[in-house]
Amino acid sequence: MDFSTKFNALLRRVEAGLGTWLPAADTRPGRIHAAMRYSIEAGGKRIRPVIVLATADFLQPAGPRDPVPAAVAVECLHTYSLIHDDLPCMDDDDLRRGRPTLHRAFDEATALLAGDALLTHALGLLVTAYASEPALAVALAADMTDAAGSRRLIGGQVEDLAAEGRMDLNAGDLAYIHLNKTAAMLELSFSLGARIGGASEAERVALVRAGRELGLAFQIIDDVLDATADTAALGKTAGKDAKAGKVTSVSLHGIEDSRRHAAEHAATARARLAEVRGGDSFLAALIDALTVRSR
Amino acid sequence: MDFSTKFNALLRRVEAGLGTWLPAADTRPGRIHAAMRYSIEAGGKRIRPVIVLATADFLQPAGPRDPVPAAVAVECLHTYSLIHDDLPCMDDDDLRRGRPTLHRAFDEATALLAGDALLTHALGLLVTAYASEPALAVALAADMTDAAGSRRLIGGQVEDLAAEGRMDLNAGDLAYIHLNKTAAMLELSFSLGARIGGASEAERVALVRAGRELGLAFQIIDDVLDATADTAALGKTAGKDAKAGKVTSVSLHGIEDSRRHAAEHAATARARLAEVRGGDSFLAALIDALTVRSR
Repeated sequence: MDFSTKFNALLRRVEAGLGTWLPAADTRPGRIHAAMRYSIEAGGKRIRPVIVLATADFLQPAGPRDPVPAAVAVECLHTYSLIHDDLPCMDDDDLRRGRPTLHRAFDEATALLAGDALLTHALGLLVTAYASEPALAVALAADMTDAAGSRRLIGGQVEDLAAEGRMDLNAGDLAYIHLNKTAAMLELSFSLGARIGGASEAERVALVRAGRELGLAFQIIDDVLDATADTAALGKTAGKDAKAGKVTSVSLHGIEDSRRHAAEHAATARARLAEVRGGDSFLAALIDALTVRSR
Repeated sequence: MDFSTKFNALLRRVEAGLGTWLPAADTRPGRIHAAMRYSIEAGGKRIRPVIVLATADFLQPAGPRDPVPAAVAVECLHTYSLIHDDLPCMDDDDLRRGRPTLHRAFDEATALLAGDALLTHALGLLVTAYASEPALAVALAADMTDAAGSRRLIGGQVEDLAAEGRMDLNAGDLAYIHLNKTAAMLELSFSLGARIGGASEAERVALVRAGRELGLAFQIIDDVLDATADTAALGKTAGKDAKAGKVTSVSLHGIEDSRRHAAEHAATARARLAEVRGGDSFLAALIDALTVRSR
């Protein structure tokens, strides 16, 4: 199966899973459930849930465990972080995935609460869908609370916000932001897939490292695209970093060196992946695809 | 031991637990961890964590399990909900627990993220502190994601917000709000304490029902106090409901009938409690204390 055929097959499983594992839009109170689905159904690249599925499939090609609830949980978590990031007190953004952001389409309070609800739902899914294997469920949930917590995802967001207008930010500060704001979620995606696929601890650690390197590559490319692409191609507002006076890979290292750094991180990601049972051609191709992307 | 001696002993365990189980204020990024501690250390009545401890102690007087992490988790969850409730897009409140609200003392983005972090931390505590008993940890976390989710706590907040200015709200709508916005957290506190204390499922269900009735009594008293007490006595802004044109127990039923309804719910709570091993004198006294309180 070629890369895009396999990607689309995984994507269909993700989309079907999102339909199944989110509360119906008419669940009381209808407004919050409609808001949750508005943001989830806006689409997006679904990279994180695809990684969960692909990693679990790679390790247990006909395995007994269903990775779909974990994939849905990761997408709920990611969507929560985008909804809160877009709020007026954060990035104050009007456009996300080519549609009005949730607080523009609904209102701020609903967006705040829908984000809270998606975070809660993500963790709820992990501890209920895998409850028949409690040690697995606990490990999945602990991975998520660690990756999403105040020392990782939220820590990265806090320092990212604080960095606006501070042109004295150095490469170490920027690395902290990239590692926590972006890489933590990709590490998490690999870790959940690895646990569900029955990886050894050494294999899981190697995959988490692949996720970290992919995350660093991914964020550098994001910075490059923000500086070079236009809003229509991105589906979100372009040129925000320069406008906000933000230090990015591009402002620190320039576009060409940033692209080279991204390629180096991608190569390391592929090397970590190859340590696990010789690697997986789909995940290797995904790493490549994400580091030459145009949106 | 008399009621207030025992209450204060439990309170000291809660306060010590909060010190132990929250990230230190100087953990990077310092601003978010300082914000989390600002809100937690503002105090409050600590009713929910005290219920967790008292319930577990009642069921396993010299039991092997430490209920303190679960008590801390419940207080983190409660504090998250207050922080987000106080934000400008929600209740827009300046005062909480006698101090400036978090977004006034810090800023809105920090308050948003500190709330997110406390929610994440609450669930992280449950799945890490009880990881040696994974089935217990999973059950505790599932209780919390259920109580805090879009069908309970958040559902109650959504309908509460939507109720502002809608003077046609009926008793059923108000019951939905009270049941989910307030009672869910008290049900959760009893449920966590019951599971940690090794209650049978029938005992746990009876205690959860006690929590529900206590929650309903508690919210009615809150409505009465909002209409009758002053801001200094409450430590939060009084008279908000009438100002916001909100239907409350008081606007629907008047002050005297509201007080009677609260007393009835409290009596039912004591009856449910008494079904479990004959009841517990401290928890019975706590139910009484919470339904004759003045703040």
